[in-house]
Amino acid sequence: MSNRLRHLTTLENLPRETIERLLDKANSLRDQSAHGTRKLDILAGRTVLNLFFEPSTRTRTSFELAARRMGADVINFDIALSSSSKGEELFDTLHTLEAMHLDAIIVRHKVSGTPEELVKHAMSGVSVVNAGDGNRAHPTQGLLDALTIRNHHPDFRKLKVAICGDVRHSRVARSDVHVLTAMGAKDVRIVGPSRLLPTEGEFKGVTLHEDFDEAIQGVDVVIMLRLQKERMASTDLPDEAAYFERYGLDTRRLARAAKGALVMHPGPINRGIEIAPEVADGAQSRILEQVGNGVFVRMAVLCEVMGR
Amino acid sequence: MSNRLRHLTTLENLPRETIERLLDKANSLRDQSAHGTRKLDILAGRTVLNLFFEPSTRTRTSFELAARRMGADVINFDIALSSSSKGEELFDTLHTLEAMHLDAIIVRHKVSGTPEELVKHAMSGVSVVNAGDGNRAHPTQGLLDALTIRNHHPDFRKLKVAICGDVRHSRVARSDVHVLTAMGAKDVRIVGPSRLLPTEGEFKGVTLHEDFDEAIQGVDVVIMLRLQKERMASTDLPDEAAYFERYGLDTRRLARAAKGALVMHPGPINRGIEIAPEVADGAQSRILEQVGNGVFVRMAVLCEVMGR
Amino acid sequence: MSNRLRHLTTLENLPRETIERLLDKANSLRDQSAHGTRKLDILAGRTVLNLFFEPSTRTRTSFELAARRMGADVINFDIALSSSSKGEELFDTLHTLEAMHLDAIIVRHKVSGTPEELVKHAMSGVSVVNAGDGNRAHPTQGLLDALTIRNHHPDFRKLKVAICGDVRHSRVARSDVHVLTAMGAKDVRIVGPSRLLPTEGEFKGVTLHEDFDEAIQGVDVVIMLRLQKERMASTDLPDEAAYFERYGLDTRRLARAAKGALVMHPGPINRGIEIAPEVADGAQSRILEQVGNGVFVRMAVLCEVMGR
Repeated sequence: MSNRLRHLTTLENLPRETIERLLDKANSLRDQSAHGTRKLDILAGRTVLNLFFEPSTRTRTSFELAARRMGADVINFDIALSSSSKGEELFDTLHTLEAMHLDAIIVRHKVSGTPEELVKHAMSGVSVVNAGDGNRAHPTQGLLDALTIRNHHPDFRKLKVAICGDVRHSRVARSDVHVLTAMGAKDVRIVGPSRLLPTEGEFKGVTLHEDFDEAIQGVDVVIMLRLQKERMASTDLPDEAAYFERYGLDTRRLARAAKGALVMHPGPINRGIEIAPEVADGAQSRILEQVGNGVFVRMAVLCEVMGR
Repeated sequence: MSNRLRHLTTLENLPRETIERLLDKANSLRDQSAHGTRKLDILAGRTVLNLFFEPSTRTRTSFELAARRMGADVINFDIALSSSSKGEELFDTLHTLEAMHLDAIIVRHKVSGTPEELVKHAMSGVSVVNAGDGNRAHPTQGLLDALTIRNHHPDFRKLKVAICGDVRHSRVARSDVHVLTAMGAKDVRIVGPSRLLPTEGEFKGVTLHEDFDEAIQGVDVVIMLRLQKERMASTDLPDEAAYFERYGLDTRRLARAAKGALVMHPGPINRGIEIAPEVADGAQSRILEQVGNGVFVRMAVLCEVMGR
Repeated sequence: MSNRLRHLTTLENLPRETIERLLDKANSLRDQSAHGTRKLDILAGRTVLNLFFEPSTRTRTSFELAARRMGADVINFDIALSSSSKGEELFDTLHTLEAMHLDAIIVRHKVSGTPEELVKHAMSGVSVVNAGDGNRAHPTQGLLDALTIRNHHPDFRKLKVAICGDVRHSRVARSDVHVLTAMGAKDVRIVGPSRLLPTEGEFKGVTLHEDFDEAIQGVDVVIMLRLQKERMASTDLPDEAAYFERYGLDTRRLARAAKGALVMHPGPINRGIEIAPEVADGAQSRILEQVGNGVFVRMAVLCEVMGR
């Protein structure tokens, strides 16, 4: 395991074999832990610290459960610093935490690139895991999405995926594109109103679409993104109903996708804005499966970076 | 134990034998844990989540201690949702938490009936324990009050109890009435200014009183409720001194109760508003005994709902 | 160990042998825990509660790590009370926590003397550890500073120390003076603008200085204090640059101290206000060593007060 990751800050440029190893490990940890009901001691004696500059109870709880299920201690470091805290103040906080001998720091920060900055400035052997930075990356979300897809469609070379919503500002979309590309997905379609699409050429090997009805045609997976309500103003859509009309996933639209297409969403969902309740709760929804996989993927990542 | 509780949302209609089993278990856990000084491993590997939509450090800490003393992991889920969050948003949060494989959710919410809604919408085997919902129920408080009384007065059939204060808005009073009734208490007297009394007929088998001096006569137990200061306006009492004059428990008034009557209060107390300092700190006060019993009762409830 | 401390509220009047025992214990715990990488079970089954009325993530985390590294459970009690909460309300909170059977309460409060008040009002065997009260004492900071110094200069009788900054309002400075005096330091120099110096005669055995260039001459240790920016107004220095000019520690000024003098700071540092970045990050800086020692000193203190 000479190419073991010591940190996980992004999925960009991560080789397929590393991704596959992490997904295999996640599935294996699911079995070992009897679906999360049996506590393991793989990380007994290790200490993991949650350093969240942006609140995210769901992601923080998922990491906390992942760490504790393997016997690690978890410290929640409540940030008194302003959420935009960066530069020297941030690195002094990092060095202070390192001096207390932590094994891993899980960081969320609204400034893109913060996790890499922490890696660059780290003085000790502490591992940094990115729990979301700015619009840039949310690698464990990308991995759990890949795991959810792979458990249904082992061969990505035949896979058609649509990612719909505010892709421009979405770290989830970026990490999804990175992991889908690395896994060799055949056809990745990015869908949304023009002002929420990424800039032309930002992503390699994907196509951009403004017409969701057209883009959803025949896809095996539909990944819907959460619409931040404050983004509505930057579209040319007058209100939530108009947004839903053009970019919401309802039963009629889903019927255009491949039979049994997987419906995914990173949560929390806005019912009636980007997704119809009957689709969110329907037979094709994998939303809760994603949440479950999230814990196992995070267990795998913590094992990887801590060398277990 | 075929009638084991899988959830605890209210004490209403709970059979006496179930209550007695929980109280016996609480006493037995007190012994097993050497009064809370010895850690048990009954719930090792289990995960309990505190889902508090209303802040309550005391109750949350009591549950957290109860769970940890039996070896469970405890996650505090800090709610970013507004405190009135309900409906689909609440159930999506529930389902997300279930998908992470928790064993029990301890919930406090200002909307009455929320715990039952969670039970109804739960998709997995997660247990729901009510830590207080609206004005409606606070079942572990009712149980700890019953345990405190039973440890002094094993036979409820002779028992006279007065509950005094803002009963109308009190979930503690409702759970106390339910448990006292189920345990067969002889005489339960509800006391307070008319606008803070429950509506006529809401409770079966109790009497309503506006004159505390009269109602306290000969009772074995006096349960004082905390007066929310903002409720003062809805009484016809001009100020705190006037409230204390008519409904405060002082030495003189306590002397009208039975010899050695137990003085109880769910805390935190308002000294000089509903209770005189010398009574709160006096020999008949069982207030701190209630707090201690709270941990053991919550241990018993967690064991019950998780099948241990 | 008949003179074992049951509480630690201040270093004032603490005998040298007690201090030496705690520092020896801290070093021994560092070895036992393999520099904090091996979890111990010395406090398994014990429960420690953080009662912080003032936020302090760094100190709270250091105590939390110290307790968990020895196997104790840690509860963070989030205070709904106002930060100036005192008197009966504070003691009722104390008694409630005691009734839940805790082993130790770690308290930070902005009112000087609060830890002693808790000791005086405690009804059970709970131990109280001061994590900082008002301007008065921060005993674990004093101990960790002493440990950091002793690891480099075992013989305090030859030691010259300068403490520079807002000494008047600093609990760190007070605890440092107490521990340095008890350890027999030869020469302790208090430095700062006149309005931030302590009142004449408050400290025994120290000298007061307004000229930092003069006072730093030949010292073996320079302890810089954090300047609260709101204190600037109470000096006769017009701005941060002027403060730094007279009281900041830069390379030029540090060169006046003894060769290899230790540079210390309780953190978090204000770069460019009280300390130059190149000094904070330089070879003589012991700031992160202080942080590391903080965990071991707190482990030693928790062992001491809980009788292990």
